[in-house]
Amino acid sequence: MTALDHLRVVLVAARNPLNIGAAARAMANFGVRRLRVVNPYEVAFREARSAVGAADLLAEAEEYAGVAEAVADCRLVVGTTAGTRRDLQHRMLRLELGARTIKRQLTIGPVALLFGSERYGLSNEELSHCHWVMRIPTREDHSSMNLGQAVAVCLYELARGQKAAVKTSTEKRDKAPATSGEVERLTRSLFEVLDASGYVKPRAAAATETNLRRMVRRMKLNADDTVMWLGMLRQMAWKLGTTGKKQEE
Amino acid sequence: MTALDHLRVVLVAARNPLNIGAAARAMANFGVRRLRVVNPYEVAFREARSAVGAADLLAEAEEYAGVAEAVADCRLVVGTTAGTRRDLQHRMLRLELGARTIKRQLTIGPVALLFGSERYGLSNEELSHCHWVMRIPTREDHSSMNLGQAVAVCLYELARGQKAAVKTSTEKRDKAPATSGEVERLTRSLFEVLDASGYVKPRAAAATETNLRRMVRRMKLNADDTVMWLGMLRQMAWKLGTTGKKQEE
Repeated sequence: MTALDHLRVVLVAARNPLNIGAAARAMANFGVRRLRVVNPYEVAFREARSAVGAADLLAEAEEYAGVAEAVADCRLVVGTTAGTRRDLQHRMLRLELGARTIKRQLTIGPVALLFGSERYGLSNEELSHCHWVMRIPTREDHSSMNLGQAVAVCLYELARGQKAAVKTSTEKRDKAPATSGEVERLTRSLFEVLDASGYVKPRAAAATETNLRRMVRRMKLNADDTVMWLGMLRQMAWKLGTTGKKQEE
Repeated sequence: MTALDHLRVVLVAARNPLNIGAAARAMANFGVRRLRVVNPYEVAFREARSAVGAADLLAEAEEYAGVAEAVADCRLVVGTTAGTRRDLQHRMLRLELGARTIKRQLTIGPVALLFGSERYGLSNEELSHCHWVMRIPTREDHSSMNLGQAVAVCLYELARGQKAAVKTSTEKRDKAPATSGEVERLTRSLFEVLDASGYVKPRAAAATETNLRRMVRRMKLNADDTVMWLGMLRQMAWKLGTTGKKQEE
């Protein structure tokens, strides 16, 4: 059980089965399970239930006739909007800030997050059930968001930081950097190949070698890539007829 | 002009017109304008162009035959994935961290953000053009995201706190990284030299090329070092008797 189990996503008067399905899929992606639908377009809801990707979640979705019933067990009810709605009577918080408040509440008890219909968003009556409104910071000139995308962005922000510490440990598993000895071996192999190619001017040999050494270090190679480079250079050296040996098969 | 004008959203092999339209709409929502599509399913792209909500953006979308061409002008190329792909050779950064790095790069020059096909994500060949991969932190048991929602979540994170990022930019004046076009040229020169040296086994040529591409990207070369490498490889190619020309004195 995580705090997000206390979140109820409430879709009010959704019309498009693809959007209901997309909302459910985003919920599954970010670990939110409880979907409630208020007065959905009947056919849309039936079709959505057969959508792929979040079948369990849709099968368990609860249907309500009105917003009041759908949020009855919640101690905090938050409406959502994209862009700026100038007619709002409500306090409006940007998503980042609002999410922080919601996360605190989720540790205590159920919170409802309401999304309005694709066409009109939340009506004033529907908003009247909300404590405040959360705004997704879209551009003024293209403020209206797709319902499924709005749900995804809100849930991403709410899920953010959960178990972050656990995840980052396995991700930072960079390959071991090469040792200085290996890097120097590579530098010398490269110099030899270049010398055999006629790249190195006798009078500037020392300067060229210094430049190469610096450049090779800038490459910040890991151990595996160094081995690969040494193999490639050995093969070039062999072909160019220097002391290098042919690549082992 | 904002830093986000430097971002190119690249959809690779997208199949569903609704998803292409949804990606474009999310771009409009968060103030990103440059859409590039690689090898789209033709009908899908035509249908998407007539979608509502982001008509200008879709009309100006650029079409490319391959990833290399689509990212040629970019100095940083980032792939995206949801959940954890265990087969990845790339460094993987969580969205929050990756977005921070991308924002810094956007103040300097063009950055490409790649999204793979709905079904398979980005292939290994497609990923070989990327410097690293950004992971949307979805749940392990429901990791696969809808394309339009993935684009929305990534762009939300990138648009987040935007003005702050632009201001702090000038302090970090690293040498300009090479463009993807230059890096790709280097990859091909290296491949030619290796081929002339007998390093490339005919049956494994494609795999070798993909491995090389990945390795060269890991080198994170700056523009000057790339020029130096191209000069060295040209000289080797000349000596090995391929089409390369002798280094100019």
